[in-house]
Amino acid sequence: MANLVLASGSRHRAMVLENAGLTFAQIPSELDERAVEAPLAQANVLPEDRAEILAEAKAIDVAERHSGHLVIGCDQILSLDEKVLHKVNTMEQAQARLLDLQGRTHMLHSGIVLVRDGETLWRHVAPCAMTMRVMDPGFIGRHLADVGEAAFSSVGAYQIEGRGAQLFEKIEGDLFSIIGMPLLPLLDELRRLEVIDG
Amino acid sequence: MANLVLASGSRHRAMVLENAGLTFAQIPSELDERAVEAPLAQANVLPEDRAEILAEAKAIDVAERHSGHLVIGCDQILSLDEKVLHKVNTMEQAQARLLDLQGRTHMLHSGIVLVRDGETLWRHVAPCAMTMRVMDPGFIGRHLADVGEAAFSSVGAYQIEGRGAQLFEKIEGDLFSIIGMPLLPLLDELRRLEVIDG
Repeated sequence: MANLVLASGSRHRAMVLENAGLTFAQIPSELDERAVEAPLAQANVLPEDRAEILAEAKAIDVAERHSGHLVIGCDQILSLDEKVLHKVNTMEQAQARLLDLQGRTHMLHSGIVLVRDGETLWRHVAPCAMTMRVMDPGFIGRHLADVGEAAFSSVGAYQIEGRGAQLFEKIEGDLFSIIGMPLLPLLDELRRLEVIDG
Repeated sequence: MANLVLASGSRHRAMVLENAGLTFAQIPSELDERAVEAPLAQANVLPEDRAEILAEAKAIDVAERHSGHLVIGCDQILSLDEKVLHKVNTMEQAQARLLDLQGRTHMLHSGIVLVRDGETLWRHVAPCAMTMRVMDPGFIGRHLADVGEAAFSSVGAYQIEGRGAQLFEKIEGDLFSIIGMPLLPLLDELRRLEVIDG
């Protein structure tokens, strides 16, 4: 597995792979994601397709600088009624985001690809349906005060592995995909490619 | 939340509650689980009902020694074709267990209850369907050699948060329930009881 590379800086994603027993290097892509996404947004590309395209763009970016390596690219897109939402940067935006999401179901689309030397060997997108409970602005304000700037690290202004669980009524989807790393299909493909023991 | 008690010694369960922001004491039950379960097994009580009854017995055991405390009891039962399986204690048994589970779907039933002063305030059981991929004895042997005695800590001889993920093809169920702590229904009930802010 010496040549496996994770093209993401996410600690959570790396932990999922590590826990599963994979050996890999973590080399985040230096891609300007917004520049890649702008034309996709303009062309109204579906959220699930955007997750796949962005995952691929990041993997290709890293693979170009590491020839012969098998590069895992990942991306997670949040959509609400087919509208794609992006990360928030301020407490005011986080409050507005949670007010927007509360009482409704949004989707998390987790894209994952495997790229080697400019060739995309495999693509996969996993959907998760996330239903927030009805919450009033007072609770949301107290919650964000507790969570602090960690709210900015995720597109939904929540971390489901942490206090963000308090916001949810129902979660439907694979446990690994929810945190942005569709592990089971990835392992399946790595076995098929004989990168790991089967 | 000062009076909340988790009647389980499980590090994973405690971590789920801690991450969600709950404050609680962890006081494992001293119940002889097998003694409670023996008559249930003889009477062919359904796996999901056993999970609930055992969770309740553990909570009552701890609540008796801590009056006025709100006690969370948990239990997880694994069933294969309605047959209940128990923890393994040796590598040979772990190998036999994985050979039995491979290529099939087993169920994890996670029971959770809230008890205070001898009164059961709430009960819940969450089912998860776990499908292992087809594996040969050679792979299972190498896998168990890597995992070591950690295999004995779970009734399925696997830890899904660790290398156990390599054994699975498909996992269907709530991400928290799979690790034995149905967090979202618990939080819902704790809000209803006004133990936590809603």
